[in-house]
Amino acid sequence: MDETRRAQVIENLQGMGLTQALISDPMSIYYLTGYYTEPYERFLGLYLSASGASTLFANRLFPDASAACEDIRTFDDTEDPVPMVAAVTDHGAPLGVDKKLAARWLVPLQEAGAASAFKLGSTAVDNARSVKSPEEQELMRAASRTNDKAMEWLAAQVHEGVTEQEIAGGLLDVYRSLGAQDHSFAPIVSFGANAADPHHSPDGTVLAKGDVVLFDVGCRRDMYCSDMTRSFFYGESTEHQRAVYECVRRANEAAEAIVRPGVTFAEIDRAARTIIEDAGWGQYFTHRLGHQIGLEDHEPGDVSSVHDEPVRPGQCFSIEPGIYLPGDVGVRIEDLVIVTEDGCEVLNSYPKELTVLA
Amino acid sequence: MDETRRAQVIENLQGMGLTQALISDPMSIYYLTGYYTEPYERFLGLYLSASGASTLFANRLFPDASAACEDIRTFDDTEDPVPMVAAVTDHGAPLGVDKKLAARWLVPLQEAGAASAFKLGSTAVDNARSVKSPEEQELMRAASRTNDKAMEWLAAQVHEGVTEQEIAGGLLDVYRSLGAQDHSFAPIVSFGANAADPHHSPDGTVLAKGDVVLFDVGCRRDMYCSDMTRSFFYGESTEHQRAVYECVRRANEAAEAIVRPGVTFAEIDRAARTIIEDAGWGQYFTHRLGHQIGLEDHEPGDVSSVHDEPVRPGQCFSIEPGIYLPGDVGVRIEDLVIVTEDGCEVLNSYPKELTVLA
Repeated sequence: MDETRRAQVIENLQGMGLTQALISDPMSIYYLTGYYTEPYERFLGLYLSASGASTLFANRLFPDASAACEDIRTFDDTEDPVPMVAAVTDHGAPLGVDKKLAARWLVPLQEAGAASAFKLGSTAVDNARSVKSPEEQELMRAASRTNDKAMEWLAAQVHEGVTEQEIAGGLLDVYRSLGAQDHSFAPIVSFGANAADPHHSPDGTVLAKGDVVLFDVGCRRDMYCSDMTRSFFYGESTEHQRAVYECVRRANEAAEAIVRPGVTFAEIDRAARTIIEDAGWGQYFTHRLGHQIGLEDHEPGDVSSVHDEPVRPGQCFSIEPGIYLPGDVGVRIEDLVIVTEDGCEVLNSYPKELTVLA
Repeated sequence: MDETRRAQVIENLQGMGLTQALISDPMSIYYLTGYYTEPYERFLGLYLSASGASTLFANRLFPDASAACEDIRTFDDTEDPVPMVAAVTDHGAPLGVDKKLAARWLVPLQEAGAASAFKLGSTAVDNARSVKSPEEQELMRAASRTNDKAMEWLAAQVHEGVTEQEIAGGLLDVYRSLGAQDHSFAPIVSFGANAADPHHSPDGTVLAKGDVVLFDVGCRRDMYCSDMTRSFFYGESTEHQRAVYECVRRANEAAEAIVRPGVTFAEIDRAARTIIEDAGWGQYFTHRLGHQIGLEDHEPGDVSSVHDEPVRPGQCFSIEPGIYLPGDVGVRIEDLVIVTEDGCEVLNSYPKELTVLA
């Protein structure tokens, strides 16, 4: 148990009027205890109380958790963990639960009367996780350095006749050879009009001259995630394509230029969106500007028009404007940034100049 | 919308005293509508009412869902879907929710008073999904045939100096070359004592003579999952290893031999467990005998000592006894079976005779 992090979460809970919480997000449990396992449909939960008590509930099939928490309660597949949890909660006080707690556990806990009320308490952990410690920032940098190197490999795979799936299929080995452990999300490799679908899955599409080539990829390295997008052209580019590209690049750079403590997430979104709107493509920038990132690829607290909080030093998020003209062209350019005391540090150094790959 | 499946789910809901449900499991939504997307942290929900109304709620970033449901309500990242859902639910009646509905949506729906009570209604869908139609059975067979072929490839990779990760890393390409789209779960490749950890992740362990070689792998093909385990020996095997292997094989075959309609899941578990207990290794068979499978690798309704329901024709599940002697040897042998009118069909044909690979 990391006592500093635990104390921060308890303080955040108390600020929400809560004295107890049940954490089920495996990454939040890792953040607090150093113990990680993916429980799938089985129960994994960490109970925290402002009184100081902490209890970890784990299926005996999981890796040994005894180093994670002073009090461990284990069970097997024939036992119901719900009464075990209800035996430690304060039934007279509200219980904070995190946003991922599945109904399969939450509804029975409610029916068991395990607390006087059940409140979303995620932000207590999310806000702690949002501000990265110096050690975490170093891990974020290392993951993004690996991603920069992987982008060099990706650009080198672009040749006549290659398919999206062929390039995407080789990336995991590259990440591993660079010291990462896994993708942080399923890689997006999009050729031509496929790039106009922001969530396209790599398929058998064969590269053709004049195509956009969009790579949106990330690795997980020592638990922390990277995430970067670069868009290239293959063989040639039209004036129209170049205009779209340069607009997205200006939007990306304009947003990065204004990041500093006190500026709101919405203002950062606005800085990029204004440029795209002014160019007449506003309706084709169909998503938020970015998302926070850390132990998970997508962490709470979007860089979006409806998020009015100011950014704080140590927060890490993506800046990823895009323009998606259906059936025509799609471009997105994404970096990760960490907020510093007086600006931001851009974690990705792979160039953003318009590049036509031969 | 598949009206037959929808009618079955509504009938099941009514049997539970429910007149409305909110389905959030993407695979259940696919089962009912033919529409699949993975929403990650965004909201995707299908509201079903016994009155006949159906409404699909989807973020506009998702692939177009207009063919899925007569009534589609879309929203973007700046909009809250909770009031949209609460606008269609019957606030005076209980609402069934499925087991995967995350607290991030369930708690706000409760706070909005979207229903008079919130009940776990998963079994209404799960029970419908559990019994595979003839078309689904054909898809299950095709996925397992692909897995049988992949096991031939896996066995052929076993050679001096290879690591677990090297073999595991090549499997996805093999699946794709055989016509599958993906793993159905992260493949388990375990050498030597690693096989005594049922959930070992492939690492850099180098194969050594006398090792157990355990492969627990599955593919997703046309949405349906396969899942099979075979255990081999490399170079040589000891009498002790062979005794463990033959015990597990007899347990696997004894369980498969008794599957027929009316026999309970617990009795099938018992048939395998008795053999392992009688051999003195009962405490080292640490998990349930099996799990149901279909659109997901693990579906509800375990083959376990606490599941007293009789099996029904069309149900598909794994039979996967194992013996795990820590630091020593681990063996698991797993097939998928489909319950027929008078027995079961074993979907895996890869041999189970003890094999020492050269």
